[in-house]
Amino acid sequence: MADSLNCDLKSLSPLQLFERVTEQGEKVRALKAGKAPKDEIDAAVRMLLSLKLSYKTTTGQDYQAGLPPKDLVLINNGTTKEEDEDLVDPWNVQTSNAKGVDYDKLIGITLPSLLLRNLCKVILMTTETARHHNKSRSKHHRGIFFSHRDMDQILDAYENKKPFYLYTGRGPSSQAMHVGHLIPFLFTKWLQEVFDVPLVIQLTDDEKYLWKDMTVEKAYEYARENAKDIIACGFDINKTFIFSDLDYLGTSAGFYKNIVKVQKHVTFNQVKGIFGFTDSDCIGKISFPAIQAAPSFSSSFPQIFNGKENIQCLIPCAIDQDPYFRMTRDVAPRIGQPKPALLHSVFFPALQGAQTKMSASDPNSSIFLTDTPKQIKTKINKHAFSGGRDTIEEHRKYGGNCDVDVSFMYLTFFLEDDDRLEQLKQAYTSGELLTGELKKVLIETMQPLVAAHQERRKQVTDEIVKQFMTPRKLAFEF
Amino acid sequence: MADSLNCDLKSLSPLQLFERVTEQGEKVRALKAGKAPKDEIDAAVRMLLSLKLSYKTTTGQDYQAGLPPKDLVLINNGTTKEEDEDLVDPWNVQTSNAKGVDYDKLIGITLPSLLLRNLCKVILMTTETARHHNKSRSKHHRGIFFSHRDMDQILDAYENKKPFYLYTGRGPSSQAMHVGHLIPFLFTKWLQEVFDVPLVIQLTDDEKYLWKDMTVEKAYEYARENAKDIIACGFDINKTFIFSDLDYLGTSAGFYKNIVKVQKHVTFNQVKGIFGFTDSDCIGKISFPAIQAAPSFSSSFPQIFNGKENIQCLIPCAIDQDPYFRMTRDVAPRIGQPKPALLHSVFFPALQGAQTKMSASDPNSSIFLTDTPKQIKTKINKHAFSGGRDTIEEHRKYGGNCDVDVSFMYLTFFLEDDDRLEQLKQAYTSGELLTGELKKVLIETMQPLVAAHQERRKQVTDEIVKQFMTPRKLAFEF
Repeated sequence: MADSLNCDLKSLSPLQLFERVTEQGEKVRALKAGKAPKDEIDAAVRMLLSLKLSYKTTTGQDYQAGLPPKDLVLINNGTTKEEDEDLVDPWNVQTSNAKGVDYDKLIGITLPSLLLRNLCKVILMTTETARHHNKSRSKHHRGIFFSHRDMDQILDAYENKKPFYLYTGRGPSSQAMHVGHLIPFLFTKWLQEVFDVPLVIQLTDDEKYLWKDMTVEKAYEYARENAKDIIACGFDINKTFIFSDLDYLGTSAGFYKNIVKVQKHVTFNQVKGIFGFTDSDCIGKISFPAIQAAPSFSSSFPQIFNGKENIQCLIPCAIDQDPYFRMTRDVAPRIGQPKPALLHSVFFPALQGAQTKMSASDPNSSIFLTDTPKQIKTKINKHAFSGGRDTIEEHRKYGGNCDVDVSFMYLTFFLEDDDRLEQLKQAYTSGELLTGELKKVLIETMQPLVAAHQERRKQVTDEIVKQFMTPRKLAFEF
Repeated sequence: MADSLNCDLKSLSPLQLFERVTEQGEKVRALKAGKAPKDEIDAAVRMLLSLKLSYKTTTGQDYQAGLPPKDLVLINNGTTKEEDEDLVDPWNVQTSNAKGVDYDKLIGITLPSLLLRNLCKVILMTTETARHHNKSRSKHHRGIFFSHRDMDQILDAYENKKPFYLYTGRGPSSQAMHVGHLIPFLFTKWLQEVFDVPLVIQLTDDEKYLWKDMTVEKAYEYARENAKDIIACGFDINKTFIFSDLDYLGTSAGFYKNIVKVQKHVTFNQVKGIFGFTDSDCIGKISFPAIQAAPSFSSSFPQIFNGKENIQCLIPCAIDQDPYFRMTRDVAPRIGQPKPALLHSVFFPALQGAQTKMSASDPNSSIFLTDTPKQIKTKINKHAFSGGRDTIEEHRKYGGNCDVDVSFMYLTFFLEDDDRLEQLKQAYTSGELLTGELKKVLIETMQPLVAAHQERRKQVTDEIVKQFMTPRKLAFEF
């Protein structure tokens, strides 16, 4: 993907790219009308196609003459949503569709973009070529991360050995994390292994204090407990800094300065439009988006980047967090900082189906990282929504529906083996595999996975948490 | 003042006190109607008078039956002010009256409260009794500090040897400080000497960055330059901590936690009402009031107070800063903290008269701390608004008006000798003293005062600034 783009196109905004495509189209038409030599016309057409590809890579949209690029539309601006519309913002994910949120509709494109769907394959090819070393974890190119912003810049940076870093996070709303919470962290871990760059993980305990009925102390305690589960994913202590906002804000020479810079360049009108805040919201909520924005700038971590500004950031996150980073990308050039690049993941469905809201207070809505093998078995057998038929006869005849079957969805996230997943899909769709049998595969996948996580988490002592959360230099020179 | 209050009244809110007065009034009426014994009625009346005094001390208002207490009305809520009304908020001080802002009207009382006017005398008496040592700087009881909140609690704490601390601040909008800026600091220094308590001084460089067209670096530089002028007032390095927000927020384990606590308990509606913010204001301005509120709580300074919460705070400040602390006092009980006590000072008038806006960008609007003796002489002779008559003959006949004469006002602030000030007032009012002669007295007062300040400022090295601004234990045990 990176190779197919002209170097000077990288710095263009979607609108500038749109104008370049339009100009080039006019040039081609003029050449054809003027009966120019064939090789001249061919060259101009090749340039036009290349520009259109850049446009699509940057915006996720096909170029349409006369239709300037739209930005992702993820705004909860207080208007009533239509019955069949998905609602997605950092605090709500609602859909009435058993297949889950319609991501194509969400990002405003009408046809699935193969370019985006295959993003992880591209990452893998780029980095494999460079490193002669296959670190593939094949399941990462199953469309779980389905959309991006400026990922081409990151791949270019990687190829040109320019530094960048990864930033992701979690809101520690409770001690109870479920298996879905692991997805962005496992993907981030894979990205870190592939790219070998520093990683910062923000625990927004201040956000949880502001939004929930919770003390500052409790929010900080949850942050430390959640850090244990994150560390248990296997992050490299020499390359990873985990921080609680409540803690790090009071120990960093750079973090608050970036927060206040963002806060100067965002109005209440803007956060009202983006996040749906009202006049009755507390001023803490209203200014919080700047706190989630600031880690996108390397000067928030002088201890890691040796005080260097302008080191670009790549943020893997669930799509509901995009509003924060749309805002960040809007502010970045105005405070002299590079825009962070983004990789968006889909949501993890509740056991009861994609249209059901997952809730930490409902133990049956997902598999939790603290569940016993028996609990996992019972939950999957009793609660996992099935895409199978009502009777064995009907199932054998018509086959099951993988698009709405939660057991199959979970396997998409957690089964390592691509071929096995494809076999299961075919067997289930053809009716050869029954729901109970599919559930058994999921149970046998999740039980050892969760048990292994619990085993690794046990090894994470308070001392290890303290080390991960201590502001320090990482194993990189800047 | 402190002695005249019953101990259990201290914890009552104005409304609770109002109800106690009303109840007691009804009791007195019932006793009289029931022809109770004279000593019983007398005791009830004494109690009633004592309650009314407490009510007045707490609210600054006389008790009026059926009229519950109003809070100070300093709100710029976006409504148009009437022609003859004073406008006072943290960013504007406007009056059309040459005598300056009508403070009695401002705090909502109709008669000057002698109790408040003589506050500094009370402080002096209380502390003299306790310390057998006269640290009087007589000019502090000239009504410059004219109003208070909960000062009786502070005097009680002092008498009972309970700890408390002082907090004041400055917004470093430029390098240029004028003599008026010294007033709260000189008074604070006097309070610190009298009470012998820790003092924290906040430099709101983040506020100036948010409000002005200024970089973060420039705002911080101004903070450090202003710190030199503040230190030159003679503060004790062992008892005083000066901090820049941009700096201290990133080094304190307690400051941000208190900020976020305040931010959770104040809505946009509230700051809109108090400070006149609009939807077009940046989210930094909207959340800033919490940053000025947080130093009112001792847990913002764990290094000074050994991590102790609930140590009461006394804030000497100009009256325009009161909205911040009304908000703070409203939030305090809801986050389990004591309300800070307050002492309000009047504004320092511009040379051109009290109805003119003083401006750091207009060098003639005041005497600056960098002025030469010659500049001081010229400014006072050319620009100080005179309350004298048009001709010498008229002046001798009718006398001058001290109420509007800026030279006399400045002498009220800076002349040490009470008797001399009174003689000057009589001589000027009677016509014996001419404007030029009064100006000469002011010139001879200000020239050595400013020169001495410049001399002391020269002694303030970067190293001394660094020491004052380093978070550390002070010379007090907690």
